Amino acid sequence: MKRTLGVCYYPEHWPEDIWAEDAHRMVEAGLSWVRIGEFAWSRLEPKPDEFNWGWLDRAIDVLGDAGLKVILGTPTATPPRWMLDKHPDMLAVDEQGRPRGFGSRRHYCFSHRGYREESKRITRMFAERYGANKHIEAWQTDNEYACHDTTRNYSYAATEGFQLWLAQKYQSTDALNRAWGNVFWSMEYDDFADVDLPNLTVTEPNHPHVLDFYRYSSDMVVEFNREQVDEIRRYTSAPIIHNYMGRETSFDHFKVGADLDIASWDSYPIGFLSDRLEGSPEFKKRFLRQGHPDNQAFHHDLYRAVGKGRWWIMEQQPGPVNWAPYNPAPLPGMARLWAWEAFAHGAETVCYFRWRQAPFAQEQMHAGLLRTDSNDAPALAEALQVSKEINDLPDVGTAKADVALVFDYESAWAWEAQPQGADFDQFRLAFAAYRACRRAGLNVDILPPDTADLSAYKFTLAPGLMHLSEPLRMALSGATALIGPRTDTKTKDISIPTPLGPNINELDVSVTLTESLPPEVGVPLENGGQFVHWREVLEGNAPVTLRATDGHAAIMGDKLRYLAGWPDEATWDLILEDLCDETGLTHLALPDGLRIRDTETHRFVFNYAPETLEWNGTEIPTAGVHWEAL
Amino acid sequence: MKRTLGVCYYPEHWPEDIWAEDAHRMVEAGLSWVRIGEFAWSRLEPKPDEFNWGWLDRAIDVLGDAGLKVILGTPTATPPRWMLDKHPDMLAVDEQGRPRGFGSRRHYCFSHRGYREESKRITRMFAERYGANKHIEAWQTDNEYACHDTTRNYSYAATEGFQLWLAQKYQSTDALNRAWGNVFWSMEYDDFADVDLPNLTVTEPNHPHVLDFYRYSSDMVVEFNREQVDEIRRYTSAPIIHNYMGRETSFDHFKVGADLDIASWDSYPIGFLSDRLEGSPEFKKRFLRQGHPDNQAFHHDLYRAVGKGRWWIMEQQPGPVNWAPYNPAPLPGMARLWAWEAFAHGAETVCYFRWRQAPFAQEQMHAGLLRTDSNDAPALAEALQVSKEINDLPDVGTAKADVALVFDYESAWAWEAQPQGADFDQFRLAFAAYRACRRAGLNVDILPPDTADLSAYKFTLAPGLMHLSEPLRMALSGATALIGPRTDTKTKDISIPTPLGPNINELDVSVTLTESLPPEVGVPLENGGQFVHWREVLEGNAPVTLRATDGHAAIMGDKLRYLAGWPDEATWDLILEDLCDETGLTHLALPDGLRIRDTETHRFVFNYAPETLEWNGTEIPTAGVHWEAL
Amino acid sequence: MKRTLGVCYYPEHWPEDIWAEDAHRMVEAGLSWVRIGEFAWSRLEPKPDEFNWGWLDRAIDVLGDAGLKVILGTPTATPPRWMLDKHPDMLAVDEQGRPRGFGSRRHYCFSHRGYREESKRITRMFAERYGANKHIEAWQTDNEYACHDTTRNYSYAATEGFQLWLAQKYQSTDALNRAWGNVFWSMEYDDFADVDLPNLTVTEPNHPHVLDFYRYSSDMVVEFNREQVDEIRRYTSAPIIHNYMGRETSFDHFKVGADLDIASWDSYPIGFLSDRLEGSPEFKKRFLRQGHPDNQAFHHDLYRAVGKGRWWIMEQQPGPVNWAPYNPAPLPGMARLWAWEAFAHGAETVCYFRWRQAPFAQEQMHAGLLRTDSNDAPALAEALQVSKEINDLPDVGTAKADVALVFDYESAWAWEAQPQGADFDQFRLAFAAYRACRRAGLNVDILPPDTADLSAYKFTLAPGLMHLSEPLRMALSGATALIGPRTDTKTKDISIPTPLGPNINELDVSVTLTESLPPEVGVPLENGGQFVHWREVLEGNAPVTLRATDGHAAIMGDKLRYLAGWPDEATWDLILEDLCDETGLTHLALPDGLRIRDTETHRFVFNYAPETLEWNGTEIPTAGVHWEAL
Repeated sequence: MKRTLGVCYYPEHWPEDIWAEDAHRMVEAGLSWVRIGEFAWSRLEPKPDEFNWGWLDRAIDVLGDAGLKVILGTPTATPPRWMLDKHPDMLAVDEQGRPRGFGSRRHYCFSHRGYREESKRITRMFAERYGANKHIEAWQTDNEYACHDTTRNYSYAATEGFQLWLAQKYQSTDALNRAWGNVFWSMEYDDFADVDLPNLTVTEPNHPHVLDFYRYSSDMVVEFNREQVDEIRRYTSAPIIHNYMGRETSFDHFKVGADLDIASWDSYPIGFLSDRLEGSPEFKKRFLRQGHPDNQAFHHDLYRAVGKGRWWIMEQQPGPVNWAPYNPAPLPGMARLWAWEAFAHGAETVCYFRWRQAPFAQEQMHAGLLRTDSNDAPALAEALQVSKEINDLPDVGTAKADVALVFDYESAWAWEAQPQGADFDQFRLAFAAYRACRRAGLNVDILPPDTADLSAYKFTLAPGLMHLSEPLRMALSGATALIGPRTDTKTKDISIPTPLGPNINELDVSVTLTESLPPEVGVPLENGGQFVHWREVLEGNAPVTLRATDGHAAIMGDKLRYLAGWPDEATWDLILEDLCDETGLTHLALPDGLRIRDTETHRFVFNYAPETLEWNGTEIPTAGVHWEAL
Repeated sequence: MKRTLGVCYYPEHWPEDIWAEDAHRMVEAGLSWVRIGEFAWSRLEPKPDEFNWGWLDRAIDVLGDAGLKVILGTPTATPPRWMLDKHPDMLAVDEQGRPRGFGSRRHYCFSHRGYREESKRITRMFAERYGANKHIEAWQTDNEYACHDTTRNYSYAATEGFQLWLAQKYQSTDALNRAWGNVFWSMEYDDFADVDLPNLTVTEPNHPHVLDFYRYSSDMVVEFNREQVDEIRRYTSAPIIHNYMGRETSFDHFKVGADLDIASWDSYPIGFLSDRLEGSPEFKKRFLRQGHPDNQAFHHDLYRAVGKGRWWIMEQQPGPVNWAPYNPAPLPGMARLWAWEAFAHGAETVCYFRWRQAPFAQEQMHAGLLRTDSNDAPALAEALQVSKEINDLPDVGTAKADVALVFDYESAWAWEAQPQGADFDQFRLAFAAYRACRRAGLNVDILPPDTADLSAYKFTLAPGLMHLSEPLRMALSGATALIGPRTDTKTKDISIPTPLGPNINELDVSVTLTESLPPEVGVPLENGGQFVHWREVLEGNAPVTLRATDGHAAIMGDKLRYLAGWPDEATWDLILEDLCDETGLTHLALPDGLRIRDTETHRFVFNYAPETLEWNGTEIPTAGVHWEAL
Repeated sequence: MKRTLGVCYYPEHWPEDIWAEDAHRMVEAGLSWVRIGEFAWSRLEPKPDEFNWGWLDRAIDVLGDAGLKVILGTPTATPPRWMLDKHPDMLAVDEQGRPRGFGSRRHYCFSHRGYREESKRITRMFAERYGANKHIEAWQTDNEYACHDTTRNYSYAATEGFQLWLAQKYQSTDALNRAWGNVFWSMEYDDFADVDLPNLTVTEPNHPHVLDFYRYSSDMVVEFNREQVDEIRRYTSAPIIHNYMGRETSFDHFKVGADLDIASWDSYPIGFLSDRLEGSPEFKKRFLRQGHPDNQAFHHDLYRAVGKGRWWIMEQQPGPVNWAPYNPAPLPGMARLWAWEAFAHGAETVCYFRWRQAPFAQEQMHAGLLRTDSNDAPALAEALQVSKEINDLPDVGTAKADVALVFDYESAWAWEAQPQGADFDQFRLAFAAYRACRRAGLNVDILPPDTADLSAYKFTLAPGLMHLSEPLRMALSGATALIGPRTDTKTKDISIPTPLGPNINELDVSVTLTESLPPEVGVPLENGGQFVHWREVLEGNAPVTLRATDGHAAIMGDKLRYLAGWPDEATWDLILEDLCDETGLTHLALPDGLRIRDTETHRFVFNYAPETLEWNGTEIPTAGVHWEAL
C-alpha cells in the first residue's frame, strides 16, 4: 500500500479565483487528498431549505480536476444560527445547568431528536448530491465528537432520553434500584420519570447512576454517528471516516469505530503536551516544541484498533496552534517526523491541518501549510519532503506487535465516577503502562475490552479494567499477562463482587483492601521501586513474586499475574524487563526521547529529544527520522 | 461508669437471614451498642403514608435479643424521592443560586416549612412505635447536620424565613439599618420584604447582613433538631443524641446540644487530615495513616462541653474511607488508639462506622469492621482488643482540666464574614492555641462563650472571640487569661465599638490598628518568635510584657492579658510556658506525635508518630497506647 | 500653581453635631478640599421623588464656612433599594448569566435605559440645587466606573443595546459577517437580533465578536458619563472630574476623559500590590508596606494624559485597607511619600480616603486619617507635614518628558479577546516597558493611541498596540521608536492583514509566525538576555540589530524598530540603554526601590526600599522623599 498525504481546505473561506492555484500548489506539494465541507453549513443552506450548492460543486470539480481526491465532511458540528429558531432547546447544557450559547461550534445536544433529524436530513442531502461524485473518495462524519467537553449534556432532551434508556435497560425500577444499590441512602425510585441526571447533587451521586449516564451519553454519540453513516452508505461505497480528538475518552471510540470503514484522529502533539498530558515542568520544557514522545504513538496504536486496521491522521499539526495554554512553534523537522511516525504505525494517510492559515475568526493564530498571505509556511517544505520519501521507500507494511495493551472506555468512565483519589484516571494508568513499553522499544497493539484471543501476543497488559468482559476473562486465563490494579474488582454495575475480584480461575488472588495516596507518599517495594497513587492488599494462594517492604504482596501469580498498585516509572521498567525475559523479547533501554517502531520490513527510529542521539552508531539529529531494514 | 463500644448497622442493606449471625458476631467482638435506621426512610415509607415497619421491628428484635442495645436514628437526612413531589421547593439551594438535586443525601432546606412538618411527622411515627421498645436505649436525630455544606440555603424558603427572623429581631427597618450601618452605601431598607439573602452581590455584602444570615441559618438547625427532640421525648426517656460532624462550625453546636442528652461526633482522623486540616506537606505525610495528633482530642473536649459532660463517638473510622481527596489505610493499632483516646477524654461509648463494608453505592470504598465478603476487616480485632481492655481496666473517670479554652461559633461566623485576610478563620486560630496546650501536655476544657465562671481553671485562653458575652466579660475580669487577637474588638453587630475594644475594666488596652499579612511575612518578636497572618497595634496603660522588634506591644496586661497578633508555634509555646510558670502548672515539651491525657486516676499516653517514642523510660511503639496510674 | 490636599468625607455617616469640629480639624490638618455625597442617595431621596436635601445643604455650609472647597459627587454608584422596584431588570448580570443582587454597590447595568434616565434625573437634581453653590468648586461623576468588574454586563438590556450598536456600526449583517469572519464555523447571522452576547459559548467565541462587545461596553460607560457631564454643565462652570480606579482597562479612559475637565484616580499602593500586580513573592515581600515602586507613577502619567494635563488623586490610601487578599499597614512616611510623588508627576490635588474610619459596614477595617474613635490615625500627621512642605516649596511645575509610551485601551481588549498565551495581557507588557524607563530614571509621558505628533520626544515606545491608528502610524514613520511585539499585526477587526503587519512604510518588517511560551521557557538572545512569554519570527529588509541565538531577528529597523518578543527585565534595560545612547539621554541604573522624577525646576527622589539608600551622596531613609533643584 502506498502511503499518502493530504490537507484540510475551506474553499468557502477564500475567493473562488484562487481555488485552482491552491489545488495546483497542493499537488505540487505532493498532497493526494483534500478534506472539505465540514464547517460550511451556513454557506450551503443559508436559510432553512434554501440551498446553495453551486460553490461546493465547483470547488469539488476544481480540486478533483487538479488530481486531488476529496474527503467530504458532513457539516453537523456547526449548525447555523437559524437552526436555533427551529429547535430552541437543542443547545448543549453543561454540568452546571447552563445552556451553552451560539457563537462557536458543537452547540448541539446529542439527545435532541429534532437536531438528530436535521443531522440525518443534511447528511442525506450531501450523500444524494455527492455520493456518486467521482472526486469524493472518502466521507467524514461530523467533526471531533466530544471536543470541548460536549458528549455529556445536562439538557431536558438528555434527561428524557436517559430515562427511556434506563427503562429499556432495566425494565423495572426495582431492577434499577437493586443494580445501583439505591437502598443505601433512600435513593430508590418507583418511576423512571423520577430519575434526574446525576449533576448538582448535594454530595457525590451514586456511582452506577453516573456510570449509566456516561454509558447513555456514549450511546447517543454512537447513534448519532450511525445515523449519518446509514444515510451516506445508501449513496456511496467510498469509505466513511470520523476524525477523533486525541486524549478523549468520554464516549466509546470502538463502538463508533464499528460503524466506520476507517478511523482517523487529529494529532496536535504540541497542543496536547501543553494542555492535556501529565509531566513534570522539566519534561514539558524538554519536549516543548516536539510533543510528548509517546502520545502520538499511543493514539496511532489505539486508532489502528478502532479502525480495525485502517486508520489515518485527519488533522496533523503543522505549526503553532491557538488553543493550548501556550502555543510554541514545532522544531524544524517535526512536521516530517510526526508524519513518518504515523506511517510507521500503519497510517494510510496523513492530512495536515490546514492548507492556508485563516486570517480571521477563532483559529487565526493557528498555522497552516501556507501563511495568511499565501506564502509558504515552514511545514510546507517538510510535507513535500515526506511525499518524496514516500515515493522512494517501498511499502513497509504494518507489523503485528508482540505486546498487547487492553484499553476500555467503560473502565475510564468507572474510574471517573469513582476515582477514590483526587486526579486519578484510567487513561493515565494505561498510558503509564504504554510508555514503559515504548521505553523498552516494544511494538504494542492496543486491544478492545471484548478481545477473545491473546494467543498472538507474547504478553498482555490490562491495567485498571474495572470489570472484565467474559471473552477477555477467558482469554486471560491462558495468557501471560499482567492485570491490576483495580482490574476486575467491580461488577458491571460498579459494585464490589462476592467473592472479591479478580475472579479468574487461574489466578488465586483477591483484593481485600484499597488505599489511595497523595502525590508525596509512595509504598516502597523490595525491588527498589515504589507504588504511587494507589495500592491494594491481596490475599490468596498465588505465588508472590514481588513484595512491598511492609511485607504485603505487590505482584502475585505465575503466567497471569496481578499488580497490587500503581508503579512508578522505575518499577514499570523492572516489570517489563521481567516480562520480556520470560517471553523472550528484547528489552531495550532507549535513551530519553529516542523512540522506535518496527514495521514488517523496517525499523524506524525517531529522535524527539532536543539533542542529537546515537542509535547503533548512527547519529540521529533532533527531529530526525531514521530507518533501516530489519 | 463502664465504657462501651458499638457499631453502625444497616439491616435494610442485607438479607434478613444474616441479621442474627451479624448480631452474634457483634456481641462476640465485644460491642454493646448498634445504631440503625437513619437512612432507611424509603424502606419504611416507600410511598407517602404507606408504611412498612415489619422489617425494622424484626431487626430490632434480632439485635436486641442478641444482647445489643439499639440506637435508633430518625431518617430525615435522606428524604425519599416522592417527597419532592409533595414539596418541589424543599430542595437545598447553593450560594450560586442552583437548586441541588436528588440522588445523594441532605437535599433539604432547613427553612422549608413543609419539610419541617414531614420531619416532625416521621419522627413522631418513629417515636410512637419504638419509644417504649425495650431494646431502643438511645435515639439519634437526623445525621450530621451541616455535612456537605448544607446549613446555609439560598432558597426562597430561606429568604422568607430570614425576612421574618429579621423582623422579629429588629422590629423596624430603621433599627436594622442602624445596626447594619446601611447608610454606608445607600443600602437602607424600608421593608423587611426587600432584604435579600447576602449572596451574589456585586462586591462583598455588608458583614452584619452576612452574620445575621449565618445566625438565622444556625437557628434553623437548632429549631429543626428541637422539633425532633420534642417529638421523641413525648414517647421515651431514653437519651437523645445527635452525631455532629468534625471540623464543622456553620451552626451553633452548643445551642443544638442544649436540647440533647448526649453529644456525639463522627471521628474520621485520616479523612479529616487529608481534607480539612491545615499542615505542611511534611506534617501531612508524617501523620498520613494516623491522623492529626490533636484534632481528635480537640473535638473530644469540644463535644464534652456540647454534651454538658456526656458524649460519645457515634462513628469511628475503622479503615480507609472514600470521601477525602486521598484515602490511605490507618496503621495497625490506630482503630484501638483512637478509641482509647476518646475514652481518656471521657467518652462513654465509641461506635465504629460501620459493621460490614457496603459493596454498593457511594460508600462502597469505605471500610467497615467486616469486609464486603463478610470476612473480618483489620479493625475488628482491634475493637475486640479494646473491649477486653475496657473490661480489665477500672473506671478511670474524667478529670476537670487545668486550662480552659473558650470557643464561640458566632465568632467563627464573624471571622468568616470579615476575615480581613485570605484564608484566615477562627477555628484555625483556636486550634493553634489548643495544639500548643497539647504540646505542653495540658488537659483542656473547651467552654462555651457564655461561660460565667472560670475560677476552676488555672488559666483561660480566649483567642479571636470577636465580641464577649457579658458573663464571660465578667468572668475574665478576675481571671488569669490570655485574650486576643481580635477578642472583643467588635460589637455584637460586628461594628467597631467606641471606646475601642477590648472593653474589660481590668485591662487598659485598646486595639487601634489592625493589619493582615501574607503567608511569607511575619512580625518578629523580642522573644525570638513572630506573629504571622495578623498583628494589631495597641495602646493603653497596661504593662507590656512582650514587644515586637519594631517596638509595638505584643502582649499587654497582668493576670488578664491581650495578645496583639497570631503567634507562630514557637511563640505559642513560649506563651504557654509563661502561663504555666505563673500558675504552677508543669509545661511538658512532648516529642512530636506523643500526646497525653490525664483522667481522674490515670495518665494515658498515645503515640501518633510513625516511630517508637519513649515516655519516662517506657518505649511506646507507633500507634501504641500506654496508661499509668497517677 | 499651588498644590493642595483634600479628603473624602461622609457627613451622612456621622451625627450632625460633630461636622463643624470635623471641618475645623480638616483645615487644621492643612486640607483644602473635601469630597462628599457620592454614596448618599438613600439619604437624599429615601423614597422615589421624596427628597431630603436639608442635611446636605447644611453639611456643605458647615464645610464651606470652615474654609474648605467642596467636591460634590453624583450618587449613581449606589442606587437605593427602591430603584429595583421601578426597574427590576436594571441589575448587573455577570458573565455566568447570574443577576447580581442588591446589598453592596455598582449593581446597575450601564445599558439599562431606565436607569440611565434615573442617573440623568438625580444628576440634574444635584446640579440644579448646587450648581451655583459657592462652596462647590468641583464635581465628581459617579464613583470608580468599572470597579468590581462592572463594565461588561450580560443582561437583556446589554443584549438589546449591543444589537442596536452593531446595526449602527455595520448597517448590514453581511458587513458584520465579513468583518468578523463568521463564515469560519457557520457563525453567520442574517438578523442583528440573532446576535447574542459572547458569553457561555461552547468553546471560545469569535474574537471580533468579543472585541465589539468590549467596545460597546466601553461606549456605554462613555455615554453614561457624558450624560451626567451634560446635566452638570448646564448649571455650573466648576470643573468636572471622575475618579478612575487603578489597574483598570475595561473601558476607554481617554474617551471618558475627553468629556471631563480633570482626571483623577484612586491610589491604593498596598492594596494593588497584593491584589492586582505581578511580582515574585520576594518582590511582593520587599515592597509589602510601600506598594509597587512604579505603579503609582504609571497611573500618574496615564491620568495626566487622560486629563489632558490636569489630574488629581481623588482617593489616597492612608493606612491598611480591607479589600485586598492581605492588608498590611504602610510604613511610616508612605502617606507623605505617595502624596509627594503625585505632586512631582503634576497632580494638582491629593485627597486622602477617608476622613474618619467608619466603624460599620463593608469598609470598617479601612483606615482613615482619624480612627473610628476620632483620635488621630497615623497618616494625619503625615498629611499635615505635606501641607506645610507644600507651603514652603515654590511651584515646581510639570516637566514635559523625554520618552513617550503609547497606551491603547482597544489593544488591551484585543489582547484579552485573543491572548494566545495563558495570563498574557497588554497592560503587563506596557507596564514592563514603563518600569524599564523608571529603572533608567527617565521621565515618561503616556500618550493616547491617536497621537499624531511625537516630535517632542527623544524616543517612543509602542509595545503591543494590535492596530495602529492612522495618525500614530504617520507619526511613527519619522520617529525614533520601538514598536512590537504584536504592534500593528492586526486589522481594526482583529484579523491578520495582507500584507502582514506591521505596515509602516519606513519599516520593512513583517511578522510571519508567532509563538507563546510557558513561564519556564525563554528564547535566549545574543545580548545575553532573553524573550519570555512571546516571540515572533520576522522577515523583511530592515537591518537586524539584535538576534536570538537561534539566528532569528530579535530587533529590526533603524530609527523605527520592531521588537520581535517580550523582553525580560535585563533585555529591557539593554534596549533602553541603546535608545538613550542614540538619543543623548542619560540612562541611570537606579538602585532597587529608588525612583526619581524631574519637574520643571526640581528633581525628586523617592525611596520605596525597606532600607536606606544613597543618592549622590545623600542618605535617603526608607519612605524618604528628597528634592533638589535642577
